Amino acid sequence: MKNYIKANEWKIIEEGFDPHLNKISESIFSLGNGRMGQRANFEETYTGDTLQGNYIAGVYYPDKTRVGWWKNGYPESLAKVINAANWIGLNVTIDGETLDLAQVQVSDFKRELNMREGYLLRSFTARLKSGKAVSVTARRFCSIANDEVAALRYSIRPLNFRGTLTITAFTDGDVKNQDSNYGEKFWEEVDGTIIGNEAYLTLRTKKTAFEVCTGSSISIFKDGSEVQPELEAIRKDKYVGQTFHIDCGQHEIFTIDKVAANLSSENHPKPLLMERCKQVVQTARAFGFEALLNEQAKAWAVKWQESDILIEGDVAAQQAIRFNIFQLFQTYTGKDDRLNIGPKGFTGEKYGGSTFWDTEAYCLPFYLATAEPAVARNLLIYRYKQLGKAIENAEKLGFSHGAALYPMVTMNGEECHNEWEITFEEIHRNGAIAFAIYNYVRYTNDTAYLQEYGLEVLVAIARFWKQRVNWSNDKHRYVILGVTGPNEYENNVDNNWYTNLMASWCLKYASEVALGLKAQQPQKYMELLKKLDFKEKELADWAYIVEKMYYPQDSKRGIFLQQDGYLDKEPLTVKHLSAADRPLNQKWSWDRILRSCFIKQADVLQGLYFFEEDYDLETIRRNFDYYEPRTVHESSLSPCVHSILAAKLNDEARAYEFYLRTARLDLDDYNNDTEDGLHITSMAGTWMSIVEGFAGMRVRNGQLQFNPFLPGKWESFSFSLIFRGARLNIKITEHGIRIKNESMVSLTLKVRETSYQLAGYAEIETGDSVIRPLV
Amino acid sequence: MKNYIKANEWKIIEEGFDPHLNKISESIFSLGNGRMGQRANFEETYTGDTLQGNYIAGVYYPDKTRVGWWKNGYPESLAKVINAANWIGLNVTIDGETLDLAQVQVSDFKRELNMREGYLLRSFTARLKSGKAVSVTARRFCSIANDEVAALRYSIRPLNFRGTLTITAFTDGDVKNQDSNYGEKFWEEVDGTIIGNEAYLTLRTKKTAFEVCTGSSISIFKDGSEVQPELEAIRKDKYVGQTFHIDCGQHEIFTIDKVAANLSSENHPKPLLMERCKQVVQTARAFGFEALLNEQAKAWAVKWQESDILIEGDVAAQQAIRFNIFQLFQTYTGKDDRLNIGPKGFTGEKYGGSTFWDTEAYCLPFYLATAEPAVARNLLIYRYKQLGKAIENAEKLGFSHGAALYPMVTMNGEECHNEWEITFEEIHRNGAIAFAIYNYVRYTNDTAYLQEYGLEVLVAIARFWKQRVNWSNDKHRYVILGVTGPNEYENNVDNNWYTNLMASWCLKYASEVALGLKAQQPQKYMELLKKLDFKEKELADWAYIVEKMYYPQDSKRGIFLQQDGYLDKEPLTVKHLSAADRPLNQKWSWDRILRSCFIKQADVLQGLYFFEEDYDLETIRRNFDYYEPRTVHESSLSPCVHSILAAKLNDEARAYEFYLRTARLDLDDYNNDTEDGLHITSMAGTWMSIVEGFAGMRVRNGQLQFNPFLPGKWESFSFSLIFRGARLNIKITEHGIRIKNESMVSLTLKVRETSYQLAGYAEIETGDSVIRPLV
Repeated sequence: MKNYIKANEWKIIEEGFDPHLNKISESIFSLGNGRMGQRANFEETYTGDTLQGNYIAGVYYPDKTRVGWWKNGYPESLAKVINAANWIGLNVTIDGETLDLAQVQVSDFKRELNMREGYLLRSFTARLKSGKAVSVTARRFCSIANDEVAALRYSIRPLNFRGTLTITAFTDGDVKNQDSNYGEKFWEEVDGTIIGNEAYLTLRTKKTAFEVCTGSSISIFKDGSEVQPELEAIRKDKYVGQTFHIDCGQHEIFTIDKVAANLSSENHPKPLLMERCKQVVQTARAFGFEALLNEQAKAWAVKWQESDILIEGDVAAQQAIRFNIFQLFQTYTGKDDRLNIGPKGFTGEKYGGSTFWDTEAYCLPFYLATAEPAVARNLLIYRYKQLGKAIENAEKLGFSHGAALYPMVTMNGEECHNEWEITFEEIHRNGAIAFAIYNYVRYTNDTAYLQEYGLEVLVAIARFWKQRVNWSNDKHRYVILGVTGPNEYENNVDNNWYTNLMASWCLKYASEVALGLKAQQPQKYMELLKKLDFKEKELADWAYIVEKMYYPQDSKRGIFLQQDGYLDKEPLTVKHLSAADRPLNQKWSWDRILRSCFIKQADVLQGLYFFEEDYDLETIRRNFDYYEPRTVHESSLSPCVHSILAAKLNDEARAYEFYLRTARLDLDDYNNDTEDGLHITSMAGTWMSIVEGFAGMRVRNGQLQFNPFLPGKWESFSFSLIFRGARLNIKITEHGIRIKNESMVSLTLKVRETSYQLAGYAEIETGDSVIRPLV
Repeated sequence: MKNYIKANEWKIIEEGFDPHLNKISESIFSLGNGRMGQRANFEETYTGDTLQGNYIAGVYYPDKTRVGWWKNGYPESLAKVINAANWIGLNVTIDGETLDLAQVQVSDFKRELNMREGYLLRSFTARLKSGKAVSVTARRFCSIANDEVAALRYSIRPLNFRGTLTITAFTDGDVKNQDSNYGEKFWEEVDGTIIGNEAYLTLRTKKTAFEVCTGSSISIFKDGSEVQPELEAIRKDKYVGQTFHIDCGQHEIFTIDKVAANLSSENHPKPLLMERCKQVVQTARAFGFEALLNEQAKAWAVKWQESDILIEGDVAAQQAIRFNIFQLFQTYTGKDDRLNIGPKGFTGEKYGGSTFWDTEAYCLPFYLATAEPAVARNLLIYRYKQLGKAIENAEKLGFSHGAALYPMVTMNGEECHNEWEITFEEIHRNGAIAFAIYNYVRYTNDTAYLQEYGLEVLVAIARFWKQRVNWSNDKHRYVILGVTGPNEYENNVDNNWYTNLMASWCLKYASEVALGLKAQQPQKYMELLKKLDFKEKELADWAYIVEKMYYPQDSKRGIFLQQDGYLDKEPLTVKHLSAADRPLNQKWSWDRILRSCFIKQADVLQGLYFFEEDYDLETIRRNFDYYEPRTVHESSLSPCVHSILAAKLNDEARAYEFYLRTARLDLDDYNNDTEDGLHITSMAGTWMSIVEGFAGMRVRNGQLQFNPFLPGKWESFSFSLIFRGARLNIKITEHGIRIKNESMVSLTLKVRETSYQLAGYAEIETGDSVIRPLV
C-alpha cells in the first residue's frame, strides 16, 4: 500500500522523484489508445530501475511454453503481446554529460496524467555532476482520434550555463520481454530508413511474421522558433536515430517535437507498410503537436461525455473512478473486433496481453453502458470469430460434434495457458461467454445478433456441456466432475455449484434462443440446423440434463455448497487468519490453500449475482453471510460482486467497504504489484460497484431500473449511460435521484418499485426516503 | 513392444546391428556396481543415435527448477544424478579412417550381457569405406568386488590388410545431461594429469562442489604380448587422453586394456582424491584385466548364491527374472547408507536418479530376502539420516512440532519435484516409509533398530498425520482432504481410502512402538521423550484419530471407495477403451483422465496388499473384482500387487498374467520407453510376483509361510532366501514344495496350514495336491 499520488479530480499527480516508486508510476501513468500503448518510461536515458513497455494491439509472439511437467493437451507455445519498438527515445547530453535521472540531482519532479485531455506531462529540474542545471518539461500522448499516431514534446532549459546540447532522437526495436520464457528476442528487422528528420523502422515478429513500421518525424525549436541543425543519421540493427547538436544560452528553451506512427501489417499490406507510415507521419507533422493535442482533448471530451462518473465530496474517489474509466478506454475502444482486453492492458507484460473471462464477466457491462452498442458487440464478435478454434480446442480435449471450449487465456483463439487445473478445468469460462451474449442482448435488444452470430456460439457451448456432464448412478443426477470454479483456491473439484449452474443455464438459454429463431425465422433456423448438423433431439437431451442437474447444497444452513465436500473443511473465517498468513498465495503452500475453506473469489456469490432474479433475497442473504466471511478477495475481481450483493441486501456500509478495496487498487498500490502493470479488468468491477451497486442499476424486461443509495462520505454522485439510443445522466444525492435524458429517445424506467416515463430531453427527480446517506 | 533379445538362461544377447535399437540396447546392457554405472555405449566413436550415460552414485547437481507457473513451496532446484566423465572412450582410426559403426558396414554384430559373471561383451566385423575389414571384441565391467574400479579390454584384428591403427584412449568430462533444464553443463575441471599410460581427470560439480577423480591406465598388446608404443598426451578442457600408433599385420590381434577408477569426494578428502585414485588404478593395473574379471565373477557368484531364482521349462522367464535380479544388484548393493535406488538406476537420466517411495514399497522386500539384513537396513538408515530435512520440508508446508513429511522425490533429503498435486499432496509416501520400518522388523526381528532409529522416524511421521487430518463436522469423523494417492490418475481428492488407512496405521504403529519401548526400556524411552519433546498426550490424540478416522466405502457393493465421490464417475471398465485410447496418459488430456474412473495403479488394492491380515478373503475378492477391471496399469509398479492378490485369491491364471506384464518389460521394450533407461524399481515387483505371488511367501508371527502354486508353463521354479540367519532354497514343482536349509540355523515354517520344523542343513518336501499346475 502506497499513498504518494496527489488527489485531484481530473489528474493523477506524482510530486518528487523516488526511484523506488518509478516502476509503479510507469504503470499508473501509462498511455494508450486501444491500438497501441506504453508505460510511462522516460524519454531520456534512465539507468535506474525501469520496466520498458511499448505494445501494439494484436501483434503477438508465440513464446515456447515453459513447463515443469508436461501434460498431454498443453499448447506448444503461449501467444503474448510483446514489447515493441521504443519510439520515445531521446538521448540527451549536455556538454558531454548524459542526462540520466539515476545519475543527477533531481528537484521539482512532477508527473501528471491529464485524464480529461489524455496526455502525460512530466517536468523536473536536474543538476548534473558538473553543476550545470536544466529544467525539463515533457508531454506526450497516444492519439485516440487517430490511433496510429502518437506524439511527444520535450523542452530543455539551461538554468545556469550556456552550452551544447547533443540529442539523439531514436526508435529502438532491440527490445526484449522480461517474461520471455527462454530469454529470446522476438523481433527481427525488415528495414530501417532515415531521411532527413524522418526515420522509419520496420520490424517483423519471428514465427508469426507480423510487421510493424514505426515512423517518426522530429522538429526542433529554440525559444519557439524552428531551427534546422544538421542531423546525423544513426543506424544500428533494429535501430534508427538522428543526432544533432545545438547551442543553448542560459534560460533559452530548446524543444524537440516528435510525431510518431505505428502501423501494423494487421491493418496494411506489408509491401505498403512503410509508405503508408510515411503518409501518416507526414500528415501528423503537418498538423503539428499542438493541433494533435487539441484533437486528443476533443476526442477524450466525447468519451467523458458518455462515460464520466462525477463524485462530489470525495476527491480521492473522484480521481479513482476517473482513472479507472480512463484506463479502460485507453485499453479498448471497440473499433476492431480482432482486439480484446488484457488484464494489464498496455501497462505491463504480465498475462501476456491475452483475453480472460474477465472481459465477459466484468468489462462487458462497462462498455455496454458507456459506449455505443457496437463497442460491446465487437467484444462478442471477437469470440464469434474464434469459434472454430474453440471447437478445435475442445477436440484436443476429447470432445466432438461441434462442441466448443473457449480457451482460458487467448490471443488468437488458441489456448495460451498451461496449468492443467486451469487450462483444462476452469471451464466455467464457457458459461461467461454465453452469459455475455445474453447480457448484451438484454441491454441492447439487438436480437439480430443472436440470429446472425450468437446462436452458433450458444449451440457449440451447449454441446460442450452436454458432453462434459455425466450421469451419476450414485446421485441419480447429472454431475460435473473435475473442475476449477472462479474460486481458483479449489482445484479439480466435483460439482462446483457455480459451474453446474452455468452449464445448466447455457443449455437452457441455447434452447430458448434456438426455439425463438425457429418461431420467428423458420427458414433461417433450417439453414442453421444444416450448417451446424444440429438435430432437434439435442434440445431434448439438453432439457433432460437441465432437469436432472445436481446442485450441491446444505439444507440445514439453507445455502448452496461451493462444491461437493465443502462442509468437510475446517470451518474457519478470515478473522482466524493472522497478518502473517496473508496473502495466502504468498504465504501458504498450494495444498494448504486448497484444503482450507478460504475462498479467492466466492463463486456461489458470482452465480447469485448473475442470476439474482432466480433467488429470493433471504437465499442470497444466507449465502452471502456464509461465504463472505470465508473470502480473502485475493482476486481483484472479487470485491465488486460482494459490493453489488451487499447493496442489494441493503448493507450499504459493506457495499461501500468492498468498493473501497479496488477503487484505488493501483493508485495506492494496494497489493504491491502495480509495478507489473495496472489491473485493467478489475477497474470495470469498480465501475460496476458504483453503477450496479450504489445506484442499483439493472436492466429488467427491457427497462432500466435503479435502486440507489448514497455512500455517506459523498455529497452526490452522477454518471452517464447510453441505453438503447437514449443518453442519460443519473445523479444520486441524499435527497433522491435525478435522471436527465440528454437525447431525444424517450423511455420508461423504474426507480425502486415506481415506473416513470422519461421523454426526450426530459428530466425526472424523485425525492426518496429510501436513499439513506450512510452515517 | 520389441522382441529382438535372444533367449538364454544367463545371458542377454543381441545379434545383428540395428541402429534403431541402439538406445534401447544401451539401456538393457547397462553395467553398474552400486557405486557407479553406465549405459552400454560404444567405446569407439559412434555418430549414430546414442544416449551417453556414466553415473556416480551420490554425486548430483541441483538443476534450477523449470516451471510454468510457480507455486509457493516449490524447491528452487531439483537435485539430479548427472552424467559423469566418460572413461571408456577409444577413438580408433585405421589408416586414417575412423571406426564408427554409423559409417561402416557392420556384420556379425553381437552384444552379450553375461549376468552370471557380470560383464558386457560386444563383437562385430566392420568393413570400412576403403574396403578394409576388422573384427573387434570389447569386454567390460564395473567391479562389484571393488566398486571404485572398472575395466575394459578392446581387441581389433585386421582381416584383409596390414596397416596402422591410431588409437586415442580418453576420458572426457565435457558431457551434458539431455534433461538439463536450461542446457547448462554441470561440471568444471579441477585438474587433468597425464603421466605415461596413466591419465587422471578431476572434475567438480558446479554449486554442489562434489569432486570426482576418474583415473585410468592403459596396456597395449599385440597378439597377447605387451608392446610400448610412444604415447602422445592429449589435453583439452575436461579431457585427458593418450594417442598412439601401431602397425598391425593381417590377422594380428591388437588389444588395449584399460583399467579405470572413479573416486568421489564423498568417500575421500578432496586434497587426496587424485593420489588415492592413482593407488586404486595402479593396484588394479597390477592385478590385470583377467584377474579383475575373475574376481568379478566370484563376487557375482556369491550374489547369485543368495538371490537366484531358477525357472525350469521357460527360458524367457528364466532370462527375465535373472535380468531383474542382476539389475537390482547393479543398482544397489547396500554398502552405503547415503545411497538409494533411482527408478532408472544407472541406466538413464530420467527421474534424476532420485529416490521415490518405490524403494520402501517395492524394493525393500527384495533386498530383505536376498541379502544380509544390513543391506535393507541401510535403506532405512538413509531415511533416518534425512529426518531433519523431512521435518524442514514439513515446516515449509505449514507443519510444526517435529512433524516430518518425507519428499516425494529426493537425493539428499530435500524435495526434488515440483508438481503441486504430487510434491505437496502425494503424502502417502510417509506411510510407505513407516511401513518399511515395520516390514524390516517383521522380517529381520531387528527390534533394536526401532529403539535406536525407527521410533524417531515413526513419531515424526505420526505427528505429520496428526496435523494433516481435520475434523469434519459434517461427517463427524477425521478426514484427510486434498491428497493424491498412489493412483496418480486422481489428484487433490478427499479421503483417499489408502491414504487414510496409512495415516491411521502410522499413528497406531508409532504408538505401539513407543509403548513397547516404554515397557522394555523405560530409561531409553524417557530420553527419547525429552529429545523429541514428546508428550504422552500425543499418544491419546493419535488413538482418538485412529478411532474416529473416516474411510469411504460403498456398503451396497461391500467395497472400500478409492476416495470420496468415486461412485459419481461414469462406470466403465478397461474393456470400454479402444487401442486408440491407450496409454491414457499419452492420448487423453489430464482432466479427462482425472474425471474418468480409470486407475493408474489401484491404491485400494495396494492397501489390501499391505494389510491383508486385517481383511477377510471375501472383502479382498470384492475389492479386487471391482478395481481390477478399472486399472490400466500405466505404472510399472501396478501389476505385481495384482499378481500377488490374484494368487492369494487362488486365481492363478491371472496371477501369472499380471506377472507377465512386467517380467520382460524392458527386455521386450513393452512400453516403448526402455531407451530412456530400465524400470529398476518395478523389477523388484516382478520378483515379488514370483516369491510372494506364486510361492505365496509371507512372514507371519516371526515365521516364514508358503502358499505356492506352479505356473502351468513352468516345470518348476526355485529361489533362495536369507531369513534371520538361515539360508533357504525353495523349489516348487507340480508335485509340491521342497525347502532346503543351506545353513545351520534351524527354523519353524509353514506350508499352507501345516507347520514344519526345519533343522540346519535339513530339507523338507511336501507333496501337495493344492499345487495345481495351470493348464
